[in-house]
Amino acid sequence: MTSAAEPSQPRRRGRPGHDQAAVLRTAVDLFNRRGYDATSMGDLAKELGLTKAAIYHHVQSKEQLLIAALDDALDELTTAVTEAVRPEAGGSAYERLRAVVRRSVEVLMARQPSVTLLLRVRGNSEVEVAALNRRRWLDEQLAELVSEAVQEGSLRADIPPPLVSRLLFGMVNSLVEWYHPDGTYDAATVADAVTELAFDGLSR
Amino acid sequence: MTSAAEPSQPRRRGRPGHDQAAVLRTAVDLFNRRGYDATSMGDLAKELGLTKAAIYHHVQSKEQLLIAALDDALDELTTAVTEAVRPEAGGSAYERLRAVVRRSVEVLMARQPSVTLLLRVRGNSEVEVAALNRRRWLDEQLAELVSEAVQEGSLRADIPPPLVSRLLFGMVNSLVEWYHPDGTYDAATVADAVTELAFDGLSR
Repeated sequence: MTSAAEPSQPRRRGRPGHDQAAVLRTAVDLFNRRGYDATSMGDLAKELGLTKAAIYHHVQSKEQLLIAALDDALDELTTAVTEAVRPEAGGSAYERLRAVVRRSVEVLMARQPSVTLLLRVRGNSEVEVAALNRRRWLDEQLAELVSEAVQEGSLRADIPPPLVSRLLFGMVNSLVEWYHPDGTYDAATVADAVTELAFDGLSR
Repeated sequence: MTSAAEPSQPRRRGRPGHDQAAVLRTAVDLFNRRGYDATSMGDLAKELGLTKAAIYHHVQSKEQLLIAALDDALDELTTAVTEAVRPEAGGSAYERLRAVVRRSVEVLMARQPSVTLLLRVRGNSEVEVAALNRRRWLDEQLAELVSEAVQEGSLRADIPPPLVSRLLFGMVNSLVEWYHPDGTYDAATVADAVTELAFDGLSR
């Protein structure tokens, strides 16, 4: 749960095991399985073993849960991208691009449920439109960083930079479809694999 | 529309502009926008400007449309992969892998609506489970081809082959999220970009 969602919340104590973070985790899981629009607060209460009245001790509304989940994904990604595009960050554009690709993979794996929800948002409400706008800002920053790396001569110039950026982050985002934290590959292996495939290529 | 869907269909003529292929195109578009489960035959009839009775002159059931759409995506991909993994196909495993990646991008762009539907299938019915099984078979063949290319010494050996295969086709599949046939990039530019990024890398 991000701090952004907390100020509007009165401080109330739920039953043990049903604090706000746990409610949010269960909500995101339900939203991802059934779709946000198809999930009701009643469904969420049932999943948590709470009455519908009790759930409002923890959260104001379904939309507040969506905001908190999208912030959870977007805040970390925004921090990573903002850090990478600061000219004072030091290092070449190439180094900063390579670092932000690796960092994005780490964020995605650490926050997979909320990033999955973010990637499914289609703009069906003001909250979703705001999240799409934040995603677009990230995409623009990354495309700009790709352009810088091309200009500095460290990245191939024969693929248009916006296309590079889309393919690169398309590969990163595709992880949400299959990555399991307790599966075959640990986070470092996957982060290395994505970065090396993208920058150094598969050919030997 | 694939031939697979035709044998069970009585040959009936619809109104001009409402032949079976057009009905299928509209159905796939609706399934992608609203979700297969949330779309009714009544919705489809409305979208086509037909009565609900008239639509059954064109198709037997909603599920038949799903089968036809999934076959449309899977048949082409299966042909491409089957061709690539035949040892008699000629060429090194590396060349055949590179060719099938390029071909997959082309199929995805040529059949984007039905591939989009395929990628969203979650196994909610027998038809969906069968499609997932066909996808899994494709994935296994591709992972095997990656392994062959590693063994032949033409592909880097430090990323596990199943992970290479997932990342490679994760990047390919991510195209459904943003590619527009009448957009900035033509199919050949995108197919080249994916293949070069994956095999040769972005670094200069």
